[in-house]
Amino acid sequence: MTKSNKNSGPEARLPKGFLDTSPDDIRATNRMLATIRQVFERYGFEPLETPAIEYTDALGKFLPDLDRPNEGVFSFQDEDEQWLSLRYDLTAPLARYVAEGLKAQKLALPFRRYAVGPVWRNEKPGPGRFRQFTQFDADTVGTDNIAADAEICMLAADTMEALGIKRGDYVIKVNNRKVLDGVMETIGLAGDSNAGRRLTVLRAIDKFDRIGEGGVRALLGKGRKDESGDFTPGAQLPESHIEVIVALVLKGHGATWRGTNLHSMPTADEWTRTAAEMEEMTKQKGEPGTYFYSNRDLVLEWSELVKGSETGGQGVHELLEMQTLMQSAGYGSKRFRISADVIRGLEYYTGPVFEAEITIPVVNEDGQTVRFGSVGGGGRYDGLVERFLGTKVPATGFSIGVSRLQAALAAINKDKPAASEGPVVVLVMEKDRLADYQKMAQSLRAAGIRAEMYLGTAGMKAQMKYADKRGAPCVVIQGGDERNSPGGPMVQIKDLIEGAKAAATIKDSKEWREGRPAQFSVKEDELVAKVREVLARHKD
Amino acid sequence: MTKSNKNSGPEARLPKGFLDTSPDDIRATNRMLATIRQVFERYGFEPLETPAIEYTDALGKFLPDLDRPNEGVFSFQDEDEQWLSLRYDLTAPLARYVAEGLKAQKLALPFRRYAVGPVWRNEKPGPGRFRQFTQFDADTVGTDNIAADAEICMLAADTMEALGIKRGDYVIKVNNRKVLDGVMETIGLAGDSNAGRRLTVLRAIDKFDRIGEGGVRALLGKGRKDESGDFTPGAQLPESHIEVIVALVLKGHGATWRGTNLHSMPTADEWTRTAAEMEEMTKQKGEPGTYFYSNRDLVLEWSELVKGSETGGQGVHELLEMQTLMQSAGYGSKRFRISADVIRGLEYYTGPVFEAEITIPVVNEDGQTVRFGSVGGGGRYDGLVERFLGTKVPATGFSIGVSRLQAALAAINKDKPAASEGPVVVLVMEKDRLADYQKMAQSLRAAGIRAEMYLGTAGMKAQMKYADKRGAPCVVIQGGDERNSPGGPMVQIKDLIEGAKAAATIKDSKEWREGRPAQFSVKEDELVAKVREVLARHKD
Repeated sequence: MTKSNKNSGPEARLPKGFLDTSPDDIRATNRMLATIRQVFERYGFEPLETPAIEYTDALGKFLPDLDRPNEGVFSFQDEDEQWLSLRYDLTAPLARYVAEGLKAQKLALPFRRYAVGPVWRNEKPGPGRFRQFTQFDADTVGTDNIAADAEICMLAADTMEALGIKRGDYVIKVNNRKVLDGVMETIGLAGDSNAGRRLTVLRAIDKFDRIGEGGVRALLGKGRKDESGDFTPGAQLPESHIEVIVALVLKGHGATWRGTNLHSMPTADEWTRTAAEMEEMTKQKGEPGTYFYSNRDLVLEWSELVKGSETGGQGVHELLEMQTLMQSAGYGSKRFRISADVIRGLEYYTGPVFEAEITIPVVNEDGQTVRFGSVGGGGRYDGLVERFLGTKVPATGFSIGVSRLQAALAAINKDKPAASEGPVVVLVMEKDRLADYQKMAQSLRAAGIRAEMYLGTAGMKAQMKYADKRGAPCVVIQGGDERNSPGGPMVQIKDLIEGAKAAATIKDSKEWREGRPAQFSVKEDELVAKVREVLARHKD
Repeated sequence: MTKSNKNSGPEARLPKGFLDTSPDDIRATNRMLATIRQVFERYGFEPLETPAIEYTDALGKFLPDLDRPNEGVFSFQDEDEQWLSLRYDLTAPLARYVAEGLKAQKLALPFRRYAVGPVWRNEKPGPGRFRQFTQFDADTVGTDNIAADAEICMLAADTMEALGIKRGDYVIKVNNRKVLDGVMETIGLAGDSNAGRRLTVLRAIDKFDRIGEGGVRALLGKGRKDESGDFTPGAQLPESHIEVIVALVLKGHGATWRGTNLHSMPTADEWTRTAAEMEEMTKQKGEPGTYFYSNRDLVLEWSELVKGSETGGQGVHELLEMQTLMQSAGYGSKRFRISADVIRGLEYYTGPVFEAEITIPVVNEDGQTVRFGSVGGGGRYDGLVERFLGTKVPATGFSIGVSRLQAALAAINKDKPAASEGPVVVLVMEKDRLADYQKMAQSLRAAGIRAEMYLGTAGMKAQMKYADKRGAPCVVIQGGDERNSPGGPMVQIKDLIEGAKAAATIKDSKEWREGRPAQFSVKEDELVAKVREVLARHKD
């Protein structure tokens, strides 16, 4: 760097809500994406990539108004004054693609596609909330077959396990919007005039994980004052109707074990008990409200709650069908759980909804131990393509939040150190012999070994520091003495990992050190073979 | 699909200049990117991902004016009225990242980073010119060591070969802007007052590939009328100066073999002849202007042309240094060629410039056989980080045009058919037995075999058509007869690839067909093993 003039240029900074990604994160994410891709391919899904930019009206939902076009999405006008937007998810572009393909009679249904890529939200950024993030979606378009929903849940479960998340450390939670609608119908909340109260009820159920049974009861009734003193008005349901909703949620919520204490997690075994077994256990423990239904028993209980509602009956039927399909393929309640608190967006979904939840304990901001939580979700939706063609095209899909899942994997693997991925560094001892050093680096690279020649101007000590910072497993050194060695040119290999270990060893294990010396001389033409040996040392 | 109402919604279409990408292209690109990544990692480059959106002033170059902010880039205002833009390349965000890291003292130089991702240009789209495309870049920041430039050229060569492009089917062309500047200095084109004419000269050289020696001579002199009759004014150089420029270009241009006929390509062997050998060959053939210099001889010839110019001398020295470094690492003129017609952007580069050219013949729009051409390029630049910090930070880099390289690979491998990647399709023969069929699909998937159950509502014939369209290697069929087979449940496996082959066989090779029947019965519990055998059949 040469100082040439005072800085009068722009400031080097990123807009709020955007992030640079570090090498380690990129490598871990790429490994993860490759695994997900493999599972999705195995299920017969085809990859599709659509551009980041679409016509705003084709994306729908967030149409720009003239004063402020950037409501929720990043929008701008094309030279012909048409509005363009950055996609805010991968589903809206899929709908555009499907509608275009159907219109041109180029697309055969049913169509399974997967997609991975960044999406953008023009929203106020906050902790963990970014304005660019990556989604990984699988959708099946053009069939109302419930087998498609069951398949997507099995896909989600297989994906978790392919990533090394153990059975029991995750669960695919399944609900059905028709059951929720049916229950509301039975307590007189059907019809347009009750849309507002239905929303309040859904929002209350959605919060069950955070505010527990008492909080949900308050929100279903008169309202709830939270810790900060803010008051949220309730749905004003009579006590008997509150009981119906609470029964639905509690019975269907895995976290009901030990009442509303969500922070003591049931074990994988507990998930799989039948209702009868759980009642027996409850009797023995003398604690109330600690039932765990099997998926099938739960749906049968729910069928009582929706009696008289056609929609509710359909929802129950769909859940039973999913349960049968998954059970017969060997996917039991250790992998998927029917659960009433899966809401997933208030307006969007029309039938089954799913959520992939990581159940491992993590400590939250308040110091409480909680489950890690959701890493993705989805469900059945019918309206998206209809916007374009005027024909209903049923579809179901699942979307993984990539950085969220990455964080879950990091939490699960936190005790496993990442393997050293630094390059071998060839030091520059004599500046007029760059060609020799570069040849050495090149011979290592040609053998598939990650290697670099030092490119700066610093001395030996700073070069060693650089190699350390780069995470180099070893450095290669050749000065005049080595080159002019009487038996032919030699190089020194300094094993930095062994060196660090040796330095950390308290007792003087001379013998061991001699057996695995941290620095040693080899003939120049044995460089590749010897470096390979050093790398192999540290593979175990 | 249910017809529900007339279409009154938006039209499903993409803005001009944007593309959806097909499954085959995505898979091919992903394979290619994984290979490039591997080579770049081996050279010690670290991955970096920066977001798509940056502050417009941080990207520089295309500052939006108030009337039309979208000059060349897609720009929009944030809620605090600051201008944001979609990145138009990966180098400007790198400069921002480096400046930010240096200021915060978090970044150690030299720094090798690679990056891959989409970039956007708000330009008029044309044939092969898109408004979103993907670049794959490697840059070394913080060193003026020419070894960094040599390394990047070797990286480019290794990348081509790792992708299966044979030595001789590609070449890394290298030039140095200082040589061009030096030559112009010697013919009196130095100084600010000649900036316009220098630009005209560079543009003429840049067009050598398309317009040949005669065209370049015209553009250096009075001007040139092209086939459409359009006249481009020339640089108005006197004849003696034109000779100097033409000598520089012709001697340094690989395509001078057989004069200006660019369409007969020299073989890999012809590249490696020395000047003396080529002169000898020329004498024998009796054709003028067919010299092929070795890299070293060429630079020595050039050193005559720049005599008296300090800048030109520096350029020659840098080229000789690169040549020495690459030669000693075994990278000779089959892999890299010094060539005067590499210009690469008129304002940007300050020293060595490079271009990766695919030399295989393709037929262009006019029916002429031409070389495939450039798939990437780069060079040394010093000014980017200086904008932020007021300090010069030398850097050098290389950028691959991903879809261009993909097209080159497709042209090279055009005779190799892509392996069938379609899923095994389990047909639905009885609609009430979905669970059984799904179980079969699931057992195939669990064994790592790509498989799907048919999810539509069509009959057997349409399902077979669907399987065909999906590129299924085989289908799995189980009706009542198979299920109720006296010896236990059976399934039929129909080998679609073998079936197609058998149908295409003209003579009745009954025996062969019996040995490899296209459809056969197996026990249900042998399904996975037998499908595996069918897939193995078609691997060879």
